[in-house]
Amino acid sequence: MTAEIISVGTELLLGEIIDTNASWMSQRLAEIGLNLYYRHTVGDNLPRLSRQIGLALERAEVVLLCGGLGPTDDDLTREAIGEATGRKVVSYPEAERRLREFFSARGREITPNNLRQACGPEGAELLPNEVGTAPGICLEHGGRLVFALPGPPLELEPMWRREVEPRLCERLARTEGGGAIHTRMLRLADIGESQAAHDLRDLVEQQTDPTMAFYASPGEVKIRLATRAANAEAAEERLRPLEEEIRRRMGAHVYGVDDDAMEVVVGQLLVERQATLAIAESCTGGLVGHRITNVPGASRYLLADLVTYSNEAKQSLLGVPAEVLEKHGAVSEECARAMAEGVRRALGATYGLATTGIAGPGGGTPEKPVGTVYVAVADERETRTGGFVWGTSRLAFKERVAQMALNTLRKSILGGS
Amino acid sequence: MTAEIISVGTELLLGEIIDTNASWMSQRLAEIGLNLYYRHTVGDNLPRLSRQIGLALERAEVVLLCGGLGPTDDDLTREAIGEATGRKVVSYPEAERRLREFFSARGREITPNNLRQACGPEGAELLPNEVGTAPGICLEHGGRLVFALPGPPLELEPMWRREVEPRLCERLARTEGGGAIHTRMLRLADIGESQAAHDLRDLVEQQTDPTMAFYASPGEVKIRLATRAANAEAAEERLRPLEEEIRRRMGAHVYGVDDDAMEVVVGQLLVERQATLAIAESCTGGLVGHRITNVPGASRYLLADLVTYSNEAKQSLLGVPAEVLEKHGAVSEECARAMAEGVRRALGATYGLATTGIAGPGGGTPEKPVGTVYVAVADERETRTGGFVWGTSRLAFKERVAQMALNTLRKSILGGS
Repeated sequence: MTAEIISVGTELLLGEIIDTNASWMSQRLAEIGLNLYYRHTVGDNLPRLSRQIGLALERAEVVLLCGGLGPTDDDLTREAIGEATGRKVVSYPEAERRLREFFSARGREITPNNLRQACGPEGAELLPNEVGTAPGICLEHGGRLVFALPGPPLELEPMWRREVEPRLCERLARTEGGGAIHTRMLRLADIGESQAAHDLRDLVEQQTDPTMAFYASPGEVKIRLATRAANAEAAEERLRPLEEEIRRRMGAHVYGVDDDAMEVVVGQLLVERQATLAIAESCTGGLVGHRITNVPGASRYLLADLVTYSNEAKQSLLGVPAEVLEKHGAVSEECARAMAEGVRRALGATYGLATTGIAGPGGGTPEKPVGTVYVAVADERETRTGGFVWGTSRLAFKERVAQMALNTLRKSILGGS
Repeated sequence: MTAEIISVGTELLLGEIIDTNASWMSQRLAEIGLNLYYRHTVGDNLPRLSRQIGLALERAEVVLLCGGLGPTDDDLTREAIGEATGRKVVSYPEAERRLREFFSARGREITPNNLRQACGPEGAELLPNEVGTAPGICLEHGGRLVFALPGPPLELEPMWRREVEPRLCERLARTEGGGAIHTRMLRLADIGESQAAHDLRDLVEQQTDPTMAFYASPGEVKIRLATRAANAEAAEERLRPLEEEIRRRMGAHVYGVDDDAMEVVVGQLLVERQATLAIAESCTGGLVGHRITNVPGASRYLLADLVTYSNEAKQSLLGVPAEVLEKHGAVSEECARAMAEGVRRALGATYGLATTGIAGPGGGTPEKPVGTVYVAVADERETRTGGFVWGTSRLAFKERVAQMALNTLRKSILGGS
């Protein structure tokens, strides 16, 4: 079974945004075992878009569109599907009812152009959008399946999981009798991609089934194992030996699996131990707290995160001694230690976590260049500290330090080295 | 003059890498004033790739390929151009000489498959690659221009600047007499996309030159004005009247232009007024501080950001009275007010900014459903508060609240309504 993706939007063709939706959908298609032969990007132009849909319908059993479902006149995906399939675009009463509800629940008035979002080609099913206003579209046409999804990833991804993927899997099972791709993503911290690839070189070279692939992002390396199997048990049997060998070699570098981001893993550890956390951030400026609080239920363990950007705040809120700041400076191992211990004490938490560093571009000195950072984790027994220098962009620096800080906390909780 | 981009590589269709080259080239094309109507992605498959090249040659005057120029058997761009244009693929002696030099300079032996990289369709010009081994291809065919560029951005970008862009500009000047696209992006807060589109409907309907387009993200609407002009002054003359009309109608909703994110605008206002900021976050969990500290030099105005997730921390650190928490709860206008005033007092800041709400998915009640939020900004004269309900995903909620909080701060500083 084959699919084509059509991303819609002039802003894509102007290079104003990067098309992460197409990559994300490509990954999902690969995982469930659909063959993707072409992806296309077309602007907000009715004849070109409907022509591209028509071409895709000649070749592929599944055509996936994203974008162009908004309320404004340049949102043309609904009309383009109508033209390509020879169907009228009509209003769907149930979608209109949901749309009116959405607005009245938020005390906002609905404008006439909003009602365009309740429209779709005749004979379609409108897919509910639980995050935004634009419903998706699912249309069966001449044995083909056409889906249209909203462009914002926060709307597209849940709709994909809830509405699109089950329909694709159902059709795959019906036409091909299964054999989907099963994957496992191992997540590693505190190690570089080239070091991990080097340590696993023989496994990479021998790979046939499962396959292995490496991905890197700031402070993280992911190793993706994939195999095609009839069911989860058969896949598990093939994935497990390779996963165990990688874990044996990589040890504590492997911190999570699949969707378990570092903040999820740390949160689970804290809940298991009924422990609480207090954070004192300087250079990360709130990013550690933001990540911790992205996890539902974080209020069970996070007491507070004190972003103490000024020296005065470090002294008054965390009790960092003036002599530490005078003698070693705010960016020092000693200050990180005093911050972690101070925030733990001030909040009465099980763990205190601290970051302090120079994010740049200004503020560097010859002894402490931009990118210098210290992190510390304090518990009732000890305080562990770590430091490194990583000169890079301000945001990448913050991301890398946040990851390092959370990983140091993870290792403290686990009591490892 | 129109162009099409074809990105080549099965790894793209598997979603293993994001196609940043296509966005980058799109931007460059927009800047020099070439119209890009389609982008495509095709895997390492000769019939599909040559067919897509053939289709593009029917429609566009310039066809730009990237990827598939490597030394291995699945690198098929050379052969696909040959097939699509009915030309033999031959070896280019000068390219072969350069290739042999590249290897001998690095003390490496050249393997037979490396020599494939000295090949190209007959009648082409091979473009030197000063970073890697794969030369690019430039082929004039039936009045069309075909370019093939290597996939690694570090090789593609210098080759583009040195070899591709001058040839495109030369042809543009010859056929159209120049005229690049000039744009202005107006950034709006506190208004929905459909409301803005509704209020500007007549301008949208009348648009010819400049053109207008809307983009939405959590808590933000952008309006992009674009015109094609010979130089910046001529562009300014055409953009200014439309910009002024939009600003007249949208008023304080317009908070910035082009790359001025809300945190940049707020930072500039604070610096201008030599004012300082103290933040007290609850539901946003550090995201407001993270955004504020993404701006270089934020340490000039940010004193501290106290993420007080627990009620105890709200009391001990911010001095929120116990009776406010008991009577109104932590998610209330009264609590937001007490947090903003408390953090301002505790840090001695000019402005105190606070957020409190229910990010979900748990924690909602019938009176205060998930998505309920209050923000407050305190200065020496007054405290302004705002509240709304926005049930959505946890992360989108945090993003929207952070944007609303920063905009409330902006309005407080400006002293507007």
